[in-house]
Amino acid sequence: MESSCNFEFYNPTRILFGRNTLEQIGPCIQSRRIGKVLLLAGGGSIRDNGVYHAVSSSLRAAGIQWVEHWGVQPNPILSTVQEAVQRAREFQAEAILAVGGGSVIDSAKAVAAGCCMDNVWDAFARKSFIEKALPLFVVLTLSATGSEMNPFTVITKEDERKKWATASPALYPTVAIIDPAVQMTLPWIQTVNGGLDAIAHILEFYVMGTDEETTIALDEALMRSVIQAVDQLQEDPSRYPARANLAWAATLALNGISGTQLRGGDWSTHMIEHGLSAVHPEVAHGTGLGILFPAWLRYMEPHNPAQFRRLARQVWAADSLNEGLERMKSKWKQWGTPTALRELGVRAEEIPQIADNVWMAAPLGQLKSLSRKDVEEILKLAY
Amino acid sequence: MESSCNFEFYNPTRILFGRNTLEQIGPCIQSRRIGKVLLLAGGGSIRDNGVYHAVSSSLRAAGIQWVEHWGVQPNPILSTVQEAVQRAREFQAEAILAVGGGSVIDSAKAVAAGCCMDNVWDAFARKSFIEKALPLFVVLTLSATGSEMNPFTVITKEDERKKWATASPALYPTVAIIDPAVQMTLPWIQTVNGGLDAIAHILEFYVMGTDEETTIALDEALMRSVIQAVDQLQEDPSRYPARANLAWAATLALNGISGTQLRGGDWSTHMIEHGLSAVHPEVAHGTGLGILFPAWLRYMEPHNPAQFRRLARQVWAADSLNEGLERMKSKWKQWGTPTALRELGVRAEEIPQIADNVWMAAPLGQLKSLSRKDVEEILKLAY
Repeated sequence: MESSCNFEFYNPTRILFGRNTLEQIGPCIQSRRIGKVLLLAGGGSIRDNGVYHAVSSSLRAAGIQWVEHWGVQPNPILSTVQEAVQRAREFQAEAILAVGGGSVIDSAKAVAAGCCMDNVWDAFARKSFIEKALPLFVVLTLSATGSEMNPFTVITKEDERKKWATASPALYPTVAIIDPAVQMTLPWIQTVNGGLDAIAHILEFYVMGTDEETTIALDEALMRSVIQAVDQLQEDPSRYPARANLAWAATLALNGISGTQLRGGDWSTHMIEHGLSAVHPEVAHGTGLGILFPAWLRYMEPHNPAQFRRLARQVWAADSLNEGLERMKSKWKQWGTPTALRELGVRAEEIPQIADNVWMAAPLGQLKSLSRKDVEEILKLAY
Repeated sequence: MESSCNFEFYNPTRILFGRNTLEQIGPCIQSRRIGKVLLLAGGGSIRDNGVYHAVSSSLRAAGIQWVEHWGVQPNPILSTVQEAVQRAREFQAEAILAVGGGSVIDSAKAVAAGCCMDNVWDAFARKSFIEKALPLFVVLTLSATGSEMNPFTVITKEDERKKWATASPALYPTVAIIDPAVQMTLPWIQTVNGGLDAIAHILEFYVMGTDEETTIALDEALMRSVIQAVDQLQEDPSRYPARANLAWAATLALNGISGTQLRGGDWSTHMIEHGLSAVHPEVAHGTGLGILFPAWLRYMEPHNPAQFRRLARQVWAADSLNEGLERMKSKWKQWGTPTALRELGVRAEEIPQIADNVWMAAPLGQLKSLSRKDVEEILKLAY
């Protein structure tokens, strides 16, 4: 494996981070001479925790007109995106405002692009490229996917059970507002899933490491910081510094910084999880990743053993990968998140179907190119 | 001290990093519809190491016209900037291309702004703000200041011995090309000074830390990575992965990432060094910082003792700050860089003059507001 590969780093998203930053959303949009936005949101939680009130007050005070499209679900689906595109076009929205977590932001990216092309799914199906999109503004309510500061979006085409990703420089949010305090009232399991997702993002790059000390050490620091913050939040969910550390680490986990030097990472575990949650859409992305990653690491150990041992030592204070994986699973159990597919209600007979589903997105695997059989073996290890 | 403060992060510079990236400079400029640039450079080293040849070939192939302005010195001076502004105006340059290290890039920023305002020194003297500047392109030849990916510039007004800084979003380079391989032939002491400068940049933020685990841990990872890379380069200056790790860590040390959550840092040591090198312009910035930082840390320990002990433990594997500072100085000695002002030929009688000079830039100090007397005490400790 060639070490210290070339890379390009570019990330123009502006982050406003901290307490009481929500009230800046109106002025942010207004100062860019945008007068009409589509506000995209999920369920009603933002009505309960004050976020919707703060955002709508700020928009109103800044003289921004808006229409709202609610109902984005976890594992967001194409039909919702298409409805929102329709709504945005009718309203002649000049920008999209996502108020929510990764599902809302990913949907908003697809909507922003969908307003500028015939059929946005073509980009996911690799039939076309997203050349432009409406400007996107984000108010983040759940730190997990890093979507607030990256050019990626993942959408499920529900009729074909395809959960696919696309990317474009046009999809970087213009501004993302992150107030960690609004996450204090999250259900515990959402905090955990956010942490698991962030760790998985870092790992997807980290596993490619050899001698890229700067990025490897930075990634270890981020993983340890996520684990420490989730531990602290298990004791006290309203501890602000822990919320802030978790939120910022989750953003850095997938804004490009964690992946420099590392050949683009190896996204197999994410691909396998997408195949799983296309069949089991009730499985949260972070939960699936938390189960699949130890299995993938065990299966792949022969392909980068020194780096995997380093992971065990630096992040889990363990002497071997095996011991590290045991500690990882103990931590997941302490946090109350499943460590085996069977705990999710997945049936053993479904594994071939899930493997087929993953295989649709082949080729996959960077550290090692995975066959369909490899995918099935990893799923069995995770079962 | 309030913990986990609010922050804004924004950095639109595009980085092209790795081997053989120099040849992309022409296409980068051309694709932005720019046809005429002023090329700014220092001494002749870029003629010897192939950088000038690669850059000029790329420009020529892309059909870019250019004029050259050579002679930027370390601790770059205003008169050179003003001459280059004149040259750029006469040529009707549409952009500035900096080919060099921090001094060249800082000068190029001042030139890029100077082309768009009457007197660019007004911005350093805080009499005006840099609203716009010509686009700036960078080919980095010495990793140290981080100027390739930040909005800062430091220039010395030589007749008044003022070494002052300014910043503006207009000063972010559009593209910075970093090929670590071109640094393999640097004189050893320049590699060391680059490492010292990077460590100092991280420390200026780090010393403010309390419970901002994500940024604190990331900063420790960066500092350890710099130290390891410089150690490796002392054994073998042409070791590419070490050059790459040092180069990327030095960029991250001052591109905003190392300073998030940390209240803007405490830049006293830099201010004191600027006062020193305004009086002793022969002192390299990194050398001065390497001497001053241990003194500043010792003097300031009572103001953030837990964090300073953490620094000693995490970066120097020491049990106390004192022991950590001893290890730091041993490392500097191993690298062959001075650890006391007297070694630089500074005379004890000059200390009051240097303190006066530093004091011109008052107020200074964030962790503690420093009096002129404090500055003198720190200089004495460093003597």
